[in-house]
Amino acid sequence: MEKNKIVQLLSKVRAGKISPEDAFQMLRHLPYEDLGFAKVDHHRLIRSGMPEVVFCQGKSLKHILAIFGSLEKENKTVLLTRADKKTFQAVRRLNRKAVYNELARTISLEDKKAKKEGKVGVVCAGSADIPAAEEAAVTAEIFGSRVERVYDVGVAGIHRLLDCFKRISDSHCIVVLAGMDGVLPSVIGGLASCPVIAVPTSVGYGANFNGIAPLLTMLNSCAPNVSVVNINNGFGAGYIAALINRMKNE
Amino acid sequence: MEKNKIVQLLSKVRAGKISPEDAFQMLRHLPYEDLGFAKVDHHRLIRSGMPEVVFCQGKSLKHILAIFGSLEKENKTVLLTRADKKTFQAVRRLNRKAVYNELARTISLEDKKAKKEGKVGVVCAGSADIPAAEEAAVTAEIFGSRVERVYDVGVAGIHRLLDCFKRISDSHCIVVLAGMDGVLPSVIGGLASCPVIAVPTSVGYGANFNGIAPLLTMLNSCAPNVSVVNINNGFGAGYIAALINRMKNE
Amino acid sequence: MEKNKIVQLLSKVRAGKISPEDAFQMLRHLPYEDLGFAKVDHHRLIRSGMPEVVFCQGKSLKHILAIFGSLEKENKTVLLTRADKKTFQAVRRLNRKAVYNELARTISLEDKKAKKEGKVGVVCAGSADIPAAEEAAVTAEIFGSRVERVYDVGVAGIHRLLDCFKRISDSHCIVVLAGMDGVLPSVIGGLASCPVIAVPTSVGYGANFNGIAPLLTMLNSCAPNVSVVNINNGFGAGYIAALINRMKNE
Amino acid sequence: MEKNKIVQLLSKVRAGKISPEDAFQMLRHLPYEDLGFAKVDHHRLIRSGMPEVVFCQGKSLKHILAIFGSLEKENKTVLLTRADKKTFQAVRRLNRKAVYNELARTISLEDKKAKKEGKVGVVCAGSADIPAAEEAAVTAEIFGSRVERVYDVGVAGIHRLLDCFKRISDSHCIVVLAGMDGVLPSVIGGLASCPVIAVPTSVGYGANFNGIAPLLTMLNSCAPNVSVVNINNGFGAGYIAALINRMKNE
Amino acid sequence: MEKNKIVQLLSKVRAGKISPEDAFQMLRHLPYEDLGFAKVDHHRLIRSGMPEVVFCQGKSLKHILAIFGSLEKENKTVLLTRADKKTFQAVRRLNRKAVYNELARTISLEDKKAKKEGKVGVVCAGSADIPAAEEAAVTAEIFGSRVERVYDVGVAGIHRLLDCFKRISDSHCIVVLAGMDGVLPSVIGGLASCPVIAVPTSVGYGANFNGIAPLLTMLNSCAPNVSVVNINNGFGAGYIAALINRMKNE
Amino acid sequence: MEKNKIVQLLSKVRAGKISPEDAFQMLRHLPYEDLGFAKVDHHRLIRSGMPEVVFCQGKSLKHILAIFGSLEKENKTVLLTRADKKTFQAVRRLNRKAVYNELARTISLEDKKAKKEGKVGVVCAGSADIPAAEEAAVTAEIFGSRVERVYDVGVAGIHRLLDCFKRISDSHCIVVLAGMDGVLPSVIGGLASCPVIAVPTSVGYGANFNGIAPLLTMLNSCAPNVSVVNINNGFGAGYIAALINRMKNE
Amino acid sequence: MEKNKIVQLLSKVRAGKISPEDAFQMLRHLPYEDLGFAKVDHHRLIRSGMPEVVFCQGKSLKHILAIFGSLEKENKTVLLTRADKKTFQAVRRLNRKAVYNELARTISLEDKKAKKEGKVGVVCAGSADIPAAEEAAVTAEIFGSRVERVYDVGVAGIHRLLDCFKRISDSHCIVVLAGMDGVLPSVIGGLASCPVIAVPTSVGYGANFNGIAPLLTMLNSCAPNVSVVNINNGFGAGYIAALINRMKNE
Amino acid sequence: MEKNKIVQLLSKVRAGKISPEDAFQMLRHLPYEDLGFAKVDHHRLIRSGMPEVVFCQGKSLKHILAIFGSLEKENKTVLLTRADKKTFQAVRRLNRKAVYNELARTISLEDKKAKKEGKVGVVCAGSADIPAAEEAAVTAEIFGSRVERVYDVGVAGIHRLLDCFKRISDSHCIVVLAGMDGVLPSVIGGLASCPVIAVPTSVGYGANFNGIAPLLTMLNSCAPNVSVVNINNGFGAGYIAALINRMKNE
Repeated sequence: MEKNKIVQLLSKVRAGKISPEDAFQMLRHLPYEDLGFAKVDHHRLIRSGMPEVVFCQGKSLKHILAIFGSLEKENKTVLLTRADKKTFQAVRRLNRKAVYNELARTISLEDKKAKKEGKVGVVCAGSADIPAAEEAAVTAEIFGSRVERVYDVGVAGIHRLLDCFKRISDSHCIVVLAGMDGVLPSVIGGLASCPVIAVPTSVGYGANFNGIAPLLTMLNSCAPNVSVVNINNGFGAGYIAALINRMKNE
Repeated sequence: MEKNKIVQLLSKVRAGKISPEDAFQMLRHLPYEDLGFAKVDHHRLIRSGMPEVVFCQGKSLKHILAIFGSLEKENKTVLLTRADKKTFQAVRRLNRKAVYNELARTISLEDKKAKKEGKVGVVCAGSADIPAAEEAAVTAEIFGSRVERVYDVGVAGIHRLLDCFKRISDSHCIVVLAGMDGVLPSVIGGLASCPVIAVPTSVGYGANFNGIAPLLTMLNSCAPNVSVVNINNGFGAGYIAALINRMKNE
Repeated sequence: MEKNKIVQLLSKVRAGKISPEDAFQMLRHLPYEDLGFAKVDHHRLIRSGMPEVVFCQGKSLKHILAIFGSLEKENKTVLLTRADKKTFQAVRRLNRKAVYNELARTISLEDKKAKKEGKVGVVCAGSADIPAAEEAAVTAEIFGSRVERVYDVGVAGIHRLLDCFKRISDSHCIVVLAGMDGVLPSVIGGLASCPVIAVPTSVGYGANFNGIAPLLTMLNSCAPNVSVVNINNGFGAGYIAALINRMKNE
Repeated sequence: MEKNKIVQLLSKVRAGKISPEDAFQMLRHLPYEDLGFAKVDHHRLIRSGMPEVVFCQGKSLKHILAIFGSLEKENKTVLLTRADKKTFQAVRRLNRKAVYNELARTISLEDKKAKKEGKVGVVCAGSADIPAAEEAAVTAEIFGSRVERVYDVGVAGIHRLLDCFKRISDSHCIVVLAGMDGVLPSVIGGLASCPVIAVPTSVGYGANFNGIAPLLTMLNSCAPNVSVVNINNGFGAGYIAALINRMKNE
Repeated sequence: MEKNKIVQLLSKVRAGKISPEDAFQMLRHLPYEDLGFAKVDHHRLIRSGMPEVVFCQGKSLKHILAIFGSLEKENKTVLLTRADKKTFQAVRRLNRKAVYNELARTISLEDKKAKKEGKVGVVCAGSADIPAAEEAAVTAEIFGSRVERVYDVGVAGIHRLLDCFKRISDSHCIVVLAGMDGVLPSVIGGLASCPVIAVPTSVGYGANFNGIAPLLTMLNSCAPNVSVVNINNGFGAGYIAALINRMKNE
Repeated sequence: MEKNKIVQLLSKVRAGKISPEDAFQMLRHLPYEDLGFAKVDHHRLIRSGMPEVVFCQGKSLKHILAIFGSLEKENKTVLLTRADKKTFQAVRRLNRKAVYNELARTISLEDKKAKKEGKVGVVCAGSADIPAAEEAAVTAEIFGSRVERVYDVGVAGIHRLLDCFKRISDSHCIVVLAGMDGVLPSVIGGLASCPVIAVPTSVGYGANFNGIAPLLTMLNSCAPNVSVVNINNGFGAGYIAALINRMKNE
Repeated sequence: MEKNKIVQLLSKVRAGKISPEDAFQMLRHLPYEDLGFAKVDHHRLIRSGMPEVVFCQGKSLKHILAIFGSLEKENKTVLLTRADKKTFQAVRRLNRKAVYNELARTISLEDKKAKKEGKVGVVCAGSADIPAAEEAAVTAEIFGSRVERVYDVGVAGIHRLLDCFKRISDSHCIVVLAGMDGVLPSVIGGLASCPVIAVPTSVGYGANFNGIAPLLTMLNSCAPNVSVVNINNGFGAGYIAALINRMKNE
Repeated sequence: MEKNKIVQLLSKVRAGKISPEDAFQMLRHLPYEDLGFAKVDHHRLIRSGMPEVVFCQGKSLKHILAIFGSLEKENKTVLLTRADKKTFQAVRRLNRKAVYNELARTISLEDKKAKKEGKVGVVCAGSADIPAAEEAAVTAEIFGSRVERVYDVGVAGIHRLLDCFKRISDSHCIVVLAGMDGVLPSVIGGLASCPVIAVPTSVGYGANFNGIAPLLTMLNSCAPNVSVVNINNGFGAGYIAALINRMKNE
């Protein structure tokens, strides 16, 4: 498209209809994204098939509905995160196919024909970590990954953890969520041979400081395959896990 | 310059020496800054006459000398900040005109013909704040401002401060540096009608935490004309003050 | 006025109606602001035409109405910040011309004849930063600046940002607001040749710590033209921007 | 009393009714406070005439009423701090003479005949600091001090502050309360020749961190006569001021 | 090996030389790692070809040499991180093939026949970040990745950054290191379609707090493909990047 | 049980029904806990007689009732901590013997025949610390300890504290809870010859920071017999005290 | 003096030698401190007899000698704090009467005829706190107080502390210094009826954070007569104690 | 001893040599520790056989030698912690039997006949934790415990850890030391049935913050049998472990 515009311009230069000097001025004022570089960017989105994502927290309902309305026209897959029930009910009125995951607080439109491939493990330490874990799991699924959930396995029962680990030991990426002491990603990191994305959660009390304690634990993990995202950022972890998982499958 | 390159290319298109399609590919791979937008950027530097600045701290002497060598060829004015005496001696061997301000830890080449205009006040609370204050003052001067220094006026002697203030009450911008409790910018901010750039210094002990105490004091200043830069960042404050001062003079 | 009082007093001394000793005692007990220094201060207010500003948060409605009542008698322009709707309704009953900006949470009386001059850019990263951005924009406008708003441009879409930047590249001062990672002022600072006032907002979650993360990002900005105000302090940023913008225009 | 018990015991030793060894055992098991030292302690309370104080926050109403009931029997003066209106209404039912200071959130029984002596200054920066200021003022008054209140004087209007200061320049102790940047105690400390007790308040927003900013400012004050109490601790400041003020008067 | 032991034991059971009950007791007391699970673990190491890594900082030279001595016997590839020159000289005496990267502070033995595959980008903001960047690059190389280095590109010169980005836009994983404001990973994250591993460095001063500022910036990044490792942890980032890069190539 | 499975397998090997190689593969895939080690683990629980404990905070009522239902079938003693009244009413409907301690927020089923032995002291500084103190006391009792409560003894009344201390000076372990300045454990630690478990509580205001102040005080205690648990963690302290107390009695 | 100047000016007005208008201009430009208010200020210094104090840390030797030289001409008493031995040797060459207290790091000139009056207690917890304690003691002495030192009494040996306390129980003010857990001021505060000035010291390790732990302990002290100065600020504490002590004696 | 003094006094009363009133006065002024309560205290030391301990860090060599000299006269067992080699050489000159543990930085005199009983486990994660671990181990040994050391077992190699754990699973108390992420005590706590004393060490870098990260991890441990001491406080942990271990053995 834009290429065409530029080639047409150059053709006019060749034909002597526009002087080189004028053409230079026109080139200079073309929007940046009309040039090749930006096109690559658009190709990337098309190629990757990443659905559009809307972070709802702190946005007005009106704002969310407007964005959703514009997205659903051009995308088979749309993901809304941090969405409450009221938002879902309003979105539902716009599109009957919207699905709500109450634990994950996500609303999604999904292309039923899209395949889930590869394997992403999602592990969490306590039942209070499940909302963030579901956010990660739903995100990884929407982005095309097959997900194996292993919830509520603490380090206190190390034998149970070792047993559960077998279910995810062949994952291409493992998301590990933990609040309290945030110890689980270090242990999983020691067992796994794939990248581990650690998500500190704000579960805990006292010297937990709403997730600072597990955040620091995870940043200091002795396991070299652990990287960390923001407190409660299940979405980011699921997104990165899906990116990694896809590499294996391409 | 780059304009010329592009116009030449377009001229070749016009002359039929290059096809529009080929010209498009060449345009696409030109470095971005060859296009109009980047030129504006270069124009900005030329227009503003801002000298090149090198932050020496943490750079090797070899590295600094190489940068200086390349800068002095094309600029009449060069500023090196956070430079120690050893660096100066080496720079001096390259260029006899380099001047060292030991307090400010700056090395400068200056265009003797450039005028100092307008007025920037530089105020500091204690004699230990003088290195950062001098860095601010030298920077503002190099960038073309006339600077009035008012050093070592604390809030404890409020009458002396009020008296000294008269010397800078007609400044276009005032840089205020303070360590310890960082109270001075709030008081100067209440007296002045121009913008005040507050610089917390790391002077202090105990619960000063190397400048955190005055940093917080300044960020919470009740005077609405106070904005803040990083701890000990005399350079940044002097640079911004010069930008503001210049506006008045243009 | 006060000058008159003092000259009258001196005239009485001359006329022998008051002894020098008594006159000295009377001079000594005159309120400080009657003396020359304070008059300069009053002249400053008159000269600058700065409207009076009231920070409503934490003040009782009764208190606010009393201040407003006394201000509106002597000023054509009054600004109330951090005001809720209930406050507006009460203020409205006092003065029909009071205008409420719900996003900015400001109430204002404005001199319709006052011109907006120069150019201040107000840029924010996300839609949740808009309340603070509007506070900055309304403040700069009330203080006589023409304001160009560029909202909701994140660093993630760098091409869109570059494009939008053209609209404000000729500003005399740019206010940049951002929560989350607070990256936007560094990028705008690199593009702009004028001073940039950075406002961290409390938008974010987890390791954002209610604005500490973007505050630190901004204080450490590599762009030397960036100074910072308190978290969410749109008013302060707008005020400083107006001060700088006016310089250009005087 | 206890002295009597011990002398009686020793008399029995003398009379040969109790062996030295047995007397030693009995001495050993006497409660500690029966010995001289503890008595001095009781004398101190009697001598100082300090009324009993109850910190209500976090205590149940039932608990507060029980303590108050036991105190009012033996004391003419009782002070309850951090008390809400509901608590006052219940206390009032027990004792009609109880007085509530809504701003200070104190309930007090006072000995009308007790004189207020000396002079304690209580200064605060903004109207939002008044609750803590009133707590300090009421406490100092209940403990026998004459109090001069100077409220709502900020550093931004330094001339007004200098003027107001004259009203308290002859105080024996000055309590200074400030939130935001916490600058006021440093300025008052520079002007005053008596001890200054600084009280950071939690008034402010953003990088104020609920009073940490003014707390640090005050701890780092350059004025050597400033000492600091906990955030919002008006009671402690008023208590210490009264202790110091009394010294002057004794 | 261990498999052999167990099969031999089972063969003895089959041969009737050991009763099932006795065999059970012997199985129970075998070291855990003799059992299948641990072998899988060993298989993982063999399969992944990950060289052994020694973190030298804080270890005695004697200790390091002992570990190195034992590793070099069984591995073609060995990596020592955070190693000073003195350590290298001692290691060199043990093995002439040891190579020192002074910037990265790494000592390595490398299998010359091992291929470098795929593509990992390593980008850093300033020249002071290069030591951590080199640690990341050397690690990724030792672990089999082809690495493209892009050093010293700041956000202040956005056009240069966009230009440089083209060299790494086809990476399978990008490691981005930055100190100061830590802004670079957010910008690269917005441009890249692959996972980005962000490494805060301790480069900076004042409110940088030895890397806390960029750490928080990166944890709060708006780009969803950014995860973070510890301050200055170039090794960890290079390791994870190599893990991800390998997936693409397998 | 599992032992039987393995012995059966070995018997089949002996009988030649399964080859050693196949038996090895089957052994390898047996769940880990089927092996001896895990059984020891079960023995430990049986031996210690520790009741099952459920931390209710953050769990749904449905979830809590399900866990309680499964526990009460196999245990005479069950402890639920951080339980509100509503939870108790629901639990009560399941089991009439459930007892609620409103202060401690615990629900418990207790084996009436179990003896309380030894002696654990539970001391707290203020009446606002009592909820955490009761949680510690109830936990220690449920775990078989005789508990002596000494509540509301502050350091301000040192003589009363010394007197009260006599009641617990023969404890085998003392739990000390304090908010505000957290001074009490240091004083008790200096007096006691047994281990002291210090529990910071979130009681306080201002620079207390919800328990950080007493937490730091306790971690820095000069008394060498003091160790610390998380803020408000009465349960943990009571549990450890019971473990220590039991040692004395075994 | 200045009064004379003004009366002379007024006399000239009366004599018709200067017009009222001209006199007004001259009055306006008189330095502020010439007016009555500032004189009061000078009277304060004369009345209080406070010696001049110089904080040496961070000042150059040259700077210190110049200040000392100017002070010793007009003052019998001069105090230099945070002075090292080298500074003393240089000062000694200027004035043979200068005395060095190596522990306190103070240099002083003292008026041998000045009486020490009243009583100030200086108590510290450990022998490592003695430098700050001596700074406080020397300061209080120089400022005219009789000082009773009680060093190295920890809370761990509560009986020894109670015994030592008798020596200072009749002080007018007590300075209490402690590092580690900072518990001592709370205990002394509970025993004493006079104001207590608490000085946190940076003595300790680990979670002491160079004095933050005792600082927080002291700010949260339950004893209402405790106020706090900066970490290691022995000078400030000694100064305030002397101010309070003097009140008693006047 | 003191008992003798008091009984002698009482004998004199009996003999009529001293009146009961005079005896009372003498009793009252006897040092507190002469009275019964303090004796109990001495009895405790005698009964417990705890050797005297001196913390050398920050004390002058002269001071240390004086204390050691006085202790060695009356004690068979003396422990000096945080002692450097120079201190040892000086102590050695006083007493040939003094033994130095270079890793633990302890100097000790030991009663060779004292038995080591029970069992204390000392576990550490990395070799850099060994100094603190040895301090704990030496302390526990000096205080009469048999110690089993398990060093350098990280969570990354969970199978090796499980294996090593068997050596200490029958301990009466386990001291666990870890820096970096501080994960080890949570894992050991989950495996052990005895109390676990967790010691965060300052081993680590970046977001470890000299031990804050493992400190927080340990305070938030999900294992209920874990309590925590200060960063690097091996002595405290060893002391508490010995106290607990002794209980089992008495």
